[in-house]
Amino acid sequence: MIRRGVGRSGCQTGAVAARELVVLGTASMVPTRDRNHNGYLLRWDDAGILFDPGEGTQRQMTRAGVSASSITRIALTHLHGDHALGLPGVVQRLSLDQVPHVVPVSFPASGAPWVERLVDATVYHRAVELDLQPLLQDGPVPDGPGPGARTPLTLTARRLDHTVEVFGYRVDEPDGRRMLPDRLAGAGLSGPAVGRLVADGVAVGARGQTVRVEDVSEVRRGQSAAFVMDTRVCDAAYALADGVDLLVIESTFLERDVDAARHYGHLTARQAATVAAESGARSLVLTHFSQRYTDPREYEREARDVFDGELTVARDLDRVPVPRRE
Amino acid sequence: MIRRGVGRSGCQTGAVAARELVVLGTASMVPTRDRNHNGYLLRWDDAGILFDPGEGTQRQMTRAGVSASSITRIALTHLHGDHALGLPGVVQRLSLDQVPHVVPVSFPASGAPWVERLVDATVYHRAVELDLQPLLQDGPVPDGPGPGARTPLTLTARRLDHTVEVFGYRVDEPDGRRMLPDRLAGAGLSGPAVGRLVADGVAVGARGQTVRVEDVSEVRRGQSAAFVMDTRVCDAAYALADGVDLLVIESTFLERDVDAARHYGHLTARQAATVAAESGARSLVLTHFSQRYTDPREYEREARDVFDGELTVARDLDRVPVPRRE
Repeated sequence: MIRRGVGRSGCQTGAVAARELVVLGTASMVPTRDRNHNGYLLRWDDAGILFDPGEGTQRQMTRAGVSASSITRIALTHLHGDHALGLPGVVQRLSLDQVPHVVPVSFPASGAPWVERLVDATVYHRAVELDLQPLLQDGPVPDGPGPGARTPLTLTARRLDHTVEVFGYRVDEPDGRRMLPDRLAGAGLSGPAVGRLVADGVAVGARGQTVRVEDVSEVRRGQSAAFVMDTRVCDAAYALADGVDLLVIESTFLERDVDAARHYGHLTARQAATVAAESGARSLVLTHFSQRYTDPREYEREARDVFDGELTVARDLDRVPVPRRE
Repeated sequence: MIRRGVGRSGCQTGAVAARELVVLGTASMVPTRDRNHNGYLLRWDDAGILFDPGEGTQRQMTRAGVSASSITRIALTHLHGDHALGLPGVVQRLSLDQVPHVVPVSFPASGAPWVERLVDATVYHRAVELDLQPLLQDGPVPDGPGPGARTPLTLTARRLDHTVEVFGYRVDEPDGRRMLPDRLAGAGLSGPAVGRLVADGVAVGARGQTVRVEDVSEVRRGQSAAFVMDTRVCDAAYALADGVDLLVIESTFLERDVDAARHYGHLTARQAATVAAESGARSLVLTHFSQRYTDPREYEREARDVFDGELTVARDLDRVPVPRRE
């Protein structure tokens, strides 16, 4: 039997459900004909973490085929409009669609007055239960992917360096174990007995011997993803990106405007790609583009100079898979 | 010399600048792939009245080629999200583009707590001056098209019949006078002398006689437009629509769902068209469509049964001209 997802002991025993980034918007401060304001849904098995819903996210969800019920947590990096003005529409849509699970909403604590306005921005009947989580310091965010998801994930926030308080995020799947078919065969375990071994951590082998999960499996490193915006180059950006499978990072500017990037608290494409390369990220998604540049190939060229992994210069409605395990 | 616009005495002496409705969105509660939430800019010479900016209006403006500076007033009918969640983005864009004129924002007084949140919804520097105008009763709205417009227009609000307090609006141009070429020739007036007559209301004719504007012109009825949503059929809808050149009116439902329309405080296409026909509206724009219907020709058929003037079943980014004077 194929079991989806992850068992009690964190063993992967079947097909992996979708793990992908659904890009809902890629503009920075000013939206364009082609780019909506920010919005990113990280789908991870049955979890759906919505990062930075900018204005229009609700409609972009419709365009991308994303249901409100697939959102299990909302994570805001900061309270600038291009990262948060879509929150009211999303919350009202969660209510309209009567999403049954509690949806945690994390954000920098200094942004609390604005979050309180956004979740009560116009007249509606709140039918969804929100759990507002102001972040005061770096560290794990309560409830990870949210109580609506069974997927065990750790969500960690770290303060970045922008013109207002910003927290970037990192998602970590716990390490699991990968079953080794030859060891299982050697122990005489197959079929439902493997399922029981996964669930209980121990089983009785064909010869009556005790078989522990560790005897017939190896460590399978958990996957990870990071979401870094808006920020100047800083240690926290590197810490968030360290060894991740998927790094989503702002690249508002090009290197020729590096002074503007520093002034406004942003990254250039080259800086973003350097963070990715030096922190060992496997795949890189650049986004949050200034409307001043019209040719996205410029971002690509700049990033390619320093990063040779999987590179996506994001477009609205792109779906970027979390790379397969190595 | 062609003079644009309207002289001191309200005489039209040259080409008429654009008078049109720019449709920014046509969805009701739920946006679709093809329909953004509401948003309507009534361009009237140098005035631009933005009605009911729903979420995404800022980006729809870009798509429609509408600049922030062309907005001289914002008028909200009520504080449901599909009519107001675009206000923060528009206000922040007015600020970003440093629009120099004061922008009045009118809304039902009972909606004031939400308007206060919307204009301060996320962190930004307010560079535009807003004049918040809570409406307490039917009647003229202060400053009409706003102090940023020279066009003399009266904006009148009337309470409609919905599930929350709603005001519809009506725009009236004052009556002016139309010059009669044969009378001008008879008086021996031409060229710059006509301009002086328009400006001063009186001039000296070729034979030294006193010529009053009334002697060489006839009354030119002012044009008008009405904006009616959300509402059940009610007297105020008829009063707003009375004899207007352009009626923009919600038609959320079709007649087969007339009970739902009544329950939720909305109109059917047939009801909307009946208001238009019985109040003598010259042209009719239906909008604010429920996502439950997929064929807009159904709205058209229902409306055509009762209304034989200019009919537009609005699509996003349509531009509907105010009909030429009769």
